[in-house]
Amino acid sequence: MELKQAIMERRSVRQFTAENIARPELEQILEAGIWAPCAGNLQEWEFVCVTDPAMIGKMKVVSPGVFWKPQAIVVVCVDGTKAGEAFGARNAERWSIFDCAMAAQNMMLRAYDLGIGSCAIGSFNAVAVRELLDIPEHVRAELLLLLGRYEALPQPPPRKAEVIHWERFGNRGSGREGGST
Amino acid sequence: MELKQAIMERRSVRQFTAENIARPELEQILEAGIWAPCAGNLQEWEFVCVTDPAMIGKMKVVSPGVFWKPQAIVVVCVDGTKAGEAFGARNAERWSIFDCAMAAQNMMLRAYDLGIGSCAIGSFNAVAVRELLDIPEHVRAELLLLLGRYEALPQPPPRKAEVIHWERFGNRGSGREGGST
Repeated sequence: MELKQAIMERRSVRQFTAENIARPELEQILEAGIWAPCAGNLQEWEFVCVTDPAMIGKMKVVSPGVFWKPQAIVVVCVDGTKAGEAFGARNAERWSIFDCAMAAQNMMLRAYDLGIGSCAIGSFNAVAVRELLDIPEHVRAELLLLLGRYEALPQPPPRKAEVIHWERFGNRGSGREGGST
Repeated sequence: MELKQAIMERRSVRQFTAENIARPELEQILEAGIWAPCAGNLQEWEFVCVTDPAMIGKMKVVSPGVFWKPQAIVVVCVDGTKAGEAFGARNAERWSIFDCAMAAQNMMLRAYDLGIGSCAIGSFNAVAVRELLDIPEHVRAELLLLLGRYEALPQPPPRKAEVIHWERFGNRGSGREGGST
């Protein structure tokens, strides 16, 4: 699929069919994640891909943001020790979240490219997820990425074009070159 | 360009040529940003696209992370008031950063698709950038996105495959279906 099409057509999908996702597809989605840019090329992220339906059921119980049952959940985590040593205590969480989010966006685009719906979820109990998945103390679960096939994509929500400014904040119309919009 | 190619081949580019970027190309890059997913569809981001060479020179002075001169800089900002009202004081910064990062990743991929190099920069003086670009008090500059054409892409840095775990943290080999890697 063309990049532009993937960017424009990808929607957040929360309702999934029962159709399985093959392991090679999950591998391709995860590979897209590890090719995201990251601060200082630290790659302080850790991705735990859960496909076991029983475990997904347990995770759902502690994740208010998960309404339907996905076929897979990628838990996007950060190695807090690595991040702290590289970025310092003050910036560690900030850069880690930037890095995790870029990796997640790569994975969501690649999922859509493979016909798989996705949704990034922040509403979950990170302590419970840690215990369920044997995540060590120094690693934090930052985001759940739900993956599954879908009957239909949601309608695109309206986007705000007024967030775009040219040269200075508040200048929403003409740029330096003018007239070319 | 195929999505997969863009994801795998995009590199962080810091050294740019003097070749101009046309306004329609910048518009397409910014449009990719506004189609990123965001928490609660809040779209609390603001993108200030600077192309004026004199202003880019001034921004460079207050941005230690900018070594060469890009042709454009997109300042990725957050409306802190919107974020605070929607997400609450405790989570506002966290979700805002997730949203800005996903938008930035969309923009960097689309830039590469158009033959334009990019690099996300966190090392800049946000107060000075605010003053230079008339950014109001309730809006925070979170990231600079440098854009410019390039002579050559940097070599891909080695990626760590060991960050991928299956079913539980620490299980790096076989998944539920086994043997298909």
